[in-house]
Amino acid sequence: MHGSRIALDVMGGDLAPEAILSGARRACDPLGGLRMAPERIVLVGKQEVMDPWLAEHGDPGFALEHAPEAIGMEESPAAALRAKPRSSIAVGVQAVRDGRAGAFVSMGNTGAVVGASTIGLGTLEGVRRPGIAVTLELTGHPVTLLDMGANIVPKPQHLAQYGVMGSTYMRDCLAVHEPRVALLNIGSEPSKGTELLKSAHGLLSEAPIRFVGNIEGGDIFRGGSDVVVTDGFTGNVVLKLLEDFSSFMLHLVLSELKQHDVKWGPEALGRVRKQIDYAEYGGALLLGVKGTVVIGHGRSDAGAVANALGLAARAMDSGVNDHIIQGFAGHPGASNREARA
Amino acid sequence: MHGSRIALDVMGGDLAPEAILSGARRACDPLGGLRMAPERIVLVGKQEVMDPWLAEHGDPGFALEHAPEAIGMEESPAAALRAKPRSSIAVGVQAVRDGRAGAFVSMGNTGAVVGASTIGLGTLEGVRRPGIAVTLELTGHPVTLLDMGANIVPKPQHLAQYGVMGSTYMRDCLAVHEPRVALLNIGSEPSKGTELLKSAHGLLSEAPIRFVGNIEGGDIFRGGSDVVVTDGFTGNVVLKLLEDFSSFMLHLVLSELKQHDVKWGPEALGRVRKQIDYAEYGGALLLGVKGTVVIGHGRSDAGAVANALGLAARAMDSGVNDHIIQGFAGHPGASNREARA
Repeated sequence: MHGSRIALDVMGGDLAPEAILSGARRACDPLGGLRMAPERIVLVGKQEVMDPWLAEHGDPGFALEHAPEAIGMEESPAAALRAKPRSSIAVGVQAVRDGRAGAFVSMGNTGAVVGASTIGLGTLEGVRRPGIAVTLELTGHPVTLLDMGANIVPKPQHLAQYGVMGSTYMRDCLAVHEPRVALLNIGSEPSKGTELLKSAHGLLSEAPIRFVGNIEGGDIFRGGSDVVVTDGFTGNVVLKLLEDFSSFMLHLVLSELKQHDVKWGPEALGRVRKQIDYAEYGGALLLGVKGTVVIGHGRSDAGAVANALGLAARAMDSGVNDHIIQGFAGHPGASNREARA
Repeated sequence: MHGSRIALDVMGGDLAPEAILSGARRACDPLGGLRMAPERIVLVGKQEVMDPWLAEHGDPGFALEHAPEAIGMEESPAAALRAKPRSSIAVGVQAVRDGRAGAFVSMGNTGAVVGASTIGLGTLEGVRRPGIAVTLELTGHPVTLLDMGANIVPKPQHLAQYGVMGSTYMRDCLAVHEPRVALLNIGSEPSKGTELLKSAHGLLSEAPIRFVGNIEGGDIFRGGSDVVVTDGFTGNVVLKLLEDFSSFMLHLVLSELKQHDVKWGPEALGRVRKQIDYAEYGGALLLGVKGTVVIGHGRSDAGAVANALGLAARAMDSGVNDHIIQGFAGHPGASNREARA
């Protein structure tokens, strides 16, 4: 029972704790899309913050764990984890490690969540480095990009594993049949790019996935791939660029429309924004750690928090982690190659 | 006189030779914005292609150089340059090297133009590696990003030099007073990112420029920087992403508008597109080589070709190359650091 519970970081995120607590309630709304059982959610945070909020807004029956410390969004992850061993991030990860929960969800400091999870939970058997997977709704179907910043100087083997993990995730959690895996590069030929990418191209070609080769930056929007593999540095730059570029473009469009007295409702704008907003998919999944870890966007509102809880439940229930382990174990060639790395 | 001429690659680009030749004519249009003297343009290409076109459309008095070979857009640059020593790209670069022209403009194979120019012309005194600079009109003012793909595995010193060269270019060619130079990274703190970026941050801090520190992907659109320095791999991914993402976003917006029966003219769409289209600035400038080299977008139409000729003229006339040399010579610290690299 406890293994299906989701620990939720009440203290992390720009809109914490209000948006986090509201999001937890929303996930349990009997009229909502998720209808999660409240006892499945473990609120992790400062008791003196959680108690009054629940007293005022009502407590549907959440589990609670007290964490007396909180790590700020801008703190240096390694230093903060050392200085605050009882932070909500540390306690949430411990809840998963000790079996009091199966998943941890945080909108907090990404580096701290990645660090605490990687060290506290360890990696799945056969996995060398976890990667952050983000799913975007582009061209009418979801595309998962990884790594979005967990591993900024990866080895070729890490990239190949991201291909396998991303493919397993898309199949298990998003019902994509034989996901097409692509490698983000500066040209389509296998000889293109850095030494890292040339080696990764070779390893991905041999991996038990449907590898479709290199793609360029713009090809992400052309619908030819379901999983896009990249190093964490490039991934992070790309993700932040996409977020802000979409706002920038919509701003340009709106001021053009205004000049022409064209009225365009905020709902329409919302629908466009929704298509490129990864909060719709509940945030990012840290693939490759023992347990399920979801990192929501810092700016997450209550709706995004509920989506993140939904993603955590879906990932746990799908058995994606077991399938990742089986995937690496079932292909001794890939597995040996990893062991040698 | 010959030193102010511009060699134009008639054979390169998706729409060559038609768009190239039309673009050359447009640059010389007595009613146009550039009003270039025709004898300033040296058409470089296959005689049997140029002659009939000029016979049909009229020759305002272009200079011509015959190049019997052409390098395709998809050819491997190094192999193509070896196999086709008399390609329009090779002949155009030779024209600059031998003083028959001061600038070379090509919409052709980027790798081949960079390779031929770097080897054929050599780098400016004090410059270690050329970089591709692209200017985009964002948030109402131009931002120059470099390197966009000439140097995919740079050293810290190369990035620091890109900061100096980009700054000089913005000042001399786009009249930006004390351009703010930023380093593209995954966080604002100097300790963020790869070893390459940490070292580059240190060197940029010491360089004779207005260095404003690290910025993240999305900050490009926030107006806080005039020059954005990055490695050629990330730069290339970002540039291609921006191009296609803008089309994708406009497509989303248009289909939303259509569903609501909102009419929006193609002119308004064109104005939005124009703001993010680097063809408006004439394409990319290969900064750091002896001579002026402009690499236009492969998809360039006649208007973009004319803009590229304009950029080449502007760069030549501004003396940006002399100022780059002076910049490195005037700061022995930076110069010595380069010499040691």
